[in-house]
Amino acid sequence: MPETLDPGIGEKFSRRTKRAINHDGTFNVRRRGGPHQHDPYQWLITMSWWPFIGIVVVFFTVLNVGFAFAYLGLGLDDLPGVAAPHGWWQDFLSALFFSIQTFTSVGYGHVYPGSNLTGFLSSVEALVGVLTFALATGLLYGRFSRPTARIQFSSTAIISRRPDGQPCLQFRIANQRNNILIDLQARVMLKTVDLATNNQTYALLPLERNAISFFPLSWTLVHDITPESPLYELVPEDYERLDVEIIIQLKAYDDTFAQDVHARNSYTHDEVKWHRRFVRAYDVAEDGVAVVDLDMLDLTEAL
Amino acid sequence: MPETLDPGIGEKFSRRTKRAINHDGTFNVRRRGGPHQHDPYQWLITMSWWPFIGIVVVFFTVLNVGFAFAYLGLGLDDLPGVAAPHGWWQDFLSALFFSIQTFTSVGYGHVYPGSNLTGFLSSVEALVGVLTFALATGLLYGRFSRPTARIQFSSTAIISRRPDGQPCLQFRIANQRNNILIDLQARVMLKTVDLATNNQTYALLPLERNAISFFPLSWTLVHDITPESPLYELVPEDYERLDVEIIIQLKAYDDTFAQDVHARNSYTHDEVKWHRRFVRAYDVAEDGVAVVDLDMLDLTEAL
Amino acid sequence: MPETLDPGIGEKFSRRTKRAINHDGTFNVRRRGGPHQHDPYQWLITMSWWPFIGIVVVFFTVLNVGFAFAYLGLGLDDLPGVAAPHGWWQDFLSALFFSIQTFTSVGYGHVYPGSNLTGFLSSVEALVGVLTFALATGLLYGRFSRPTARIQFSSTAIISRRPDGQPCLQFRIANQRNNILIDLQARVMLKTVDLATNNQTYALLPLERNAISFFPLSWTLVHDITPESPLYELVPEDYERLDVEIIIQLKAYDDTFAQDVHARNSYTHDEVKWHRRFVRAYDVAEDGVAVVDLDMLDLTEAL
Amino acid sequence: MPETLDPGIGEKFSRRTKRAINHDGTFNVRRRGGPHQHDPYQWLITMSWWPFIGIVVVFFTVLNVGFAFAYLGLGLDDLPGVAAPHGWWQDFLSALFFSIQTFTSVGYGHVYPGSNLTGFLSSVEALVGVLTFALATGLLYGRFSRPTARIQFSSTAIISRRPDGQPCLQFRIANQRNNILIDLQARVMLKTVDLATNNQTYALLPLERNAISFFPLSWTLVHDITPESPLYELVPEDYERLDVEIIIQLKAYDDTFAQDVHARNSYTHDEVKWHRRFVRAYDVAEDGVAVVDLDMLDLTEAL
Repeated sequence: MPETLDPGIGEKFSRRTKRAINHDGTFNVRRRGGPHQHDPYQWLITMSWWPFIGIVVVFFTVLNVGFAFAYLGLGLDDLPGVAAPHGWWQDFLSALFFSIQTFTSVGYGHVYPGSNLTGFLSSVEALVGVLTFALATGLLYGRFSRPTARIQFSSTAIISRRPDGQPCLQFRIANQRNNILIDLQARVMLKTVDLATNNQTYALLPLERNAISFFPLSWTLVHDITPESPLYELVPEDYERLDVEIIIQLKAYDDTFAQDVHARNSYTHDEVKWHRRFVRAYDVAEDGVAVVDLDMLDLTEAL
Repeated sequence: MPETLDPGIGEKFSRRTKRAINHDGTFNVRRRGGPHQHDPYQWLITMSWWPFIGIVVVFFTVLNVGFAFAYLGLGLDDLPGVAAPHGWWQDFLSALFFSIQTFTSVGYGHVYPGSNLTGFLSSVEALVGVLTFALATGLLYGRFSRPTARIQFSSTAIISRRPDGQPCLQFRIANQRNNILIDLQARVMLKTVDLATNNQTYALLPLERNAISFFPLSWTLVHDITPESPLYELVPEDYERLDVEIIIQLKAYDDTFAQDVHARNSYTHDEVKWHRRFVRAYDVAEDGVAVVDLDMLDLTEAL
Repeated sequence: MPETLDPGIGEKFSRRTKRAINHDGTFNVRRRGGPHQHDPYQWLITMSWWPFIGIVVVFFTVLNVGFAFAYLGLGLDDLPGVAAPHGWWQDFLSALFFSIQTFTSVGYGHVYPGSNLTGFLSSVEALVGVLTFALATGLLYGRFSRPTARIQFSSTAIISRRPDGQPCLQFRIANQRNNILIDLQARVMLKTVDLATNNQTYALLPLERNAISFFPLSWTLVHDITPESPLYELVPEDYERLDVEIIIQLKAYDDTFAQDVHARNSYTHDEVKWHRRFVRAYDVAEDGVAVVDLDMLDLTEAL
Repeated sequence: MPETLDPGIGEKFSRRTKRAINHDGTFNVRRRGGPHQHDPYQWLITMSWWPFIGIVVVFFTVLNVGFAFAYLGLGLDDLPGVAAPHGWWQDFLSALFFSIQTFTSVGYGHVYPGSNLTGFLSSVEALVGVLTFALATGLLYGRFSRPTARIQFSSTAIISRRPDGQPCLQFRIANQRNNILIDLQARVMLKTVDLATNNQTYALLPLERNAISFFPLSWTLVHDITPESPLYELVPEDYERLDVEIIIQLKAYDDTFAQDVHARNSYTHDEVKWHRRFVRAYDVAEDGVAVVDLDMLDLTEAL
């Protein structure tokens, strides 16, 4: 990861911005104008599961209702096997079921296209159907196989003190998944705002250790507040006045997906607790296996 | 990115070349002779959507028309369920619909293979059909999942001046997509042409900052025209005489595709404006969210 | 690979832990509490083949039995083509076969939905069916295409001596697959445990050579036990007392999968043999081809 | 790429080996014994197209012939719709066609399972069929999407001389594909064999330039034979006596596949020409587009 201080969020604003990064890793940024690209694949891949399933069902329904109306328009006489007409609703359902049987390529055949026009229409629908499911296959695989880290961050960062009295900024992370993250790298930046100009300044907060080889348990990240640190001798009021935001960027290799995964988070000044230390969140079970307790990740105690 | 000066475009030419890189990132290069490889996957993956859909429809149609003629050749008597012959066109359509129902595996069954030859032919077609859709599935996924950056470059580069008077070359980029680009790295090269020999020379143009951690808004890339710069003390006429082309290479990690993406562009001498500065293209909305305006990316004003 | 000493396994434990890494590369770690994520994709991708096939068959069976009962509940009169009822078992089988024919989109049509309710139910089932197979396609591809290294480690590490008398720690690896691993990198760490506190300490064991360009045959990794080595002048009893575990991390580029692959292993103190050397495990066949014998990888002889 | 001298091919052999790397990038290595892994995915992904299609057709045929015999065994009376028996061959064909219609989920339905046993068998076959095509989808996509470089190497390396008289080793490469390779990196190693012991020694041959930003045309790789070079003052007889093999490893980012690609090749002592220089293999067409001629890549002339 290149060591740059400005995260590309720009420098001069007419007023104060919200936090740069939300807890879910998204940015508080909007795009306007121009050839702004809405990428349907990106949208369908990153949305959560229930809306996705809803879209699939609605898409499937709308398409088949459309084809059903087309078959109705051509007349049910062209679909031999449909029982004698029993009113509009029954006719629509018959056409709809025929459409679905064509779209999904089930094709029982008790109803079948009996004219050139229905033959043509059902041919088109069958092609649309198989291509739609080809597309759904790709989307489902794309959703599943997208490597995403589930890093749990402690809900607060703390200002603590080492045994030797050295003040430091700390926060903790744990892997919520059973997979193994390898070569986990971290970078922490400080965003402050100039009171007069609303200009934003970024500074790197060096870590005691910025990478670990394996990440099976929890990891406490530590920035020592030495005289070189931009946090040196700041008090809670300074944090608020400067609109402090501590931005974290993580990168690791995920052994299941066989790809790099990234995670982001930030702590604003009201998410920093003072004079605390973290309670140990892991121990060894009687069978000798190390156990990490995710519920304890946020647990701190007074210094 | 390795720091090399020659982009591998060669050095000696019998005449002047066009620009090395077009605005869409392609190169002005042709291959001739030898075992030059045309890769159908590469071609089908990178073409735009409408031609791709056209090829799918044509392929599907041609294949099914071919099978329809084969069934016609075997005789419609071998396809029980087809209505009594009504002339050539109607027979062809009946065979075509049967073919499509087999190819898409709909198989209503009101028409079915009634002889060993049609049984064999329809078996082959069914296999070809399912494999074709397997292939289409892969192509569709390949098209969707190919990570591509949609970086918008300002339409011109500018020769500007910093507040302290330092002259510099600048251009701007913005992300047209809503995805987040991480660890964006940039490299800028200068291509000039020797008047006498038409030889091309490449030089690296160092940037004030060649990487940023995040790229949610816009980014202005700055090359200071110091005495060490190959652009030092050049005037517009020199740019034209030397056939100046400024080549840009970008690389970033795309959080949606979970892969690196690359982008390229170049500015020729007539795409460089002198004594301008960029107008800020982003601001903060009333809800505190930063807003980038893609329509303003090209906006410059006189110094 | 970042050069860090602590593999993130934590430092202080209430009792001694088992070995950190098992021979299959898994960690002896459990998670407890909190929003611990069970990722079904990860689970289905990494399990072995027979359980996976079992799950597919069970899933397919349960779903179709469920739909069969639903059709039974609606009444077999709504499924024209089913032979006259012959008792509960025969009716269930008829409904089950119709369900499977719908789910797999075979749809022979000798049985077909004869009412609106069965029409609706079979439409839902057909959609569920095609989406299920879309999902299965993704899972199968995900399983196949997941790059995994099959590195065979010698079953023991040895304490050996170079020709010049320099003592050293050695172990051997070979690639069990026919693919070529490129740019193989290795990192070896020593885990020791403090007797009094059960605290764990990690130290890097530098290798004579920590990377090779190609890995077609076997590779012997060598750590020289110089005065700088944490293993210097330790005797077998020290290894046991300190609960020595030698942790190995490998990374390479796999030419078949076109992706990086990782492997891990560890040797505990009782897996270290003293005063041995490895017998050469490869030779040249009469046709000039180099041959590596995987059965000989563990072979050592007394110094 | 790590800078190591030994490509992991081992050091001591009982006799001379063949060349280490063949022109197609494969190694002259065999595995023997032990848990040697044959990976069917790797095999099916890397084989050429015609054998692959052959395997698909054979697999499809064998499976369906097997099912056909099973249906025959159950008796054709259980498959209503089959015409009255006309001898063994006709019965087999009828069962085979029914099997294929089930396997591909076409299911016309003029023949259908008329008993519980055929109902069960056809259910199993339908499931096997859809899963087989799910698998085929994955394999086809895996084959297409595997990034492979098509780098053409000049058929010989040459010992040439720079304008200033500096002797050098040169060879040339060109991209046979239309895709763009970015950040192409090269590493060249010299393998020599000790006459007495048959031991192999590897040495790095530093390049004048070991990376280029873009690779649209051809690239000539140059190793200067300075006094530091292991090739210094060697004559053709030395090359033969030392069994010289020049091993090349290339790595680049492929813009189409959005992944790194690798290529390998080697020149043995009889593939090195002395006192030659390469004829330029590219020029500029009248429209200003650079043209590379792959047929001219091997063209050399006397110094």
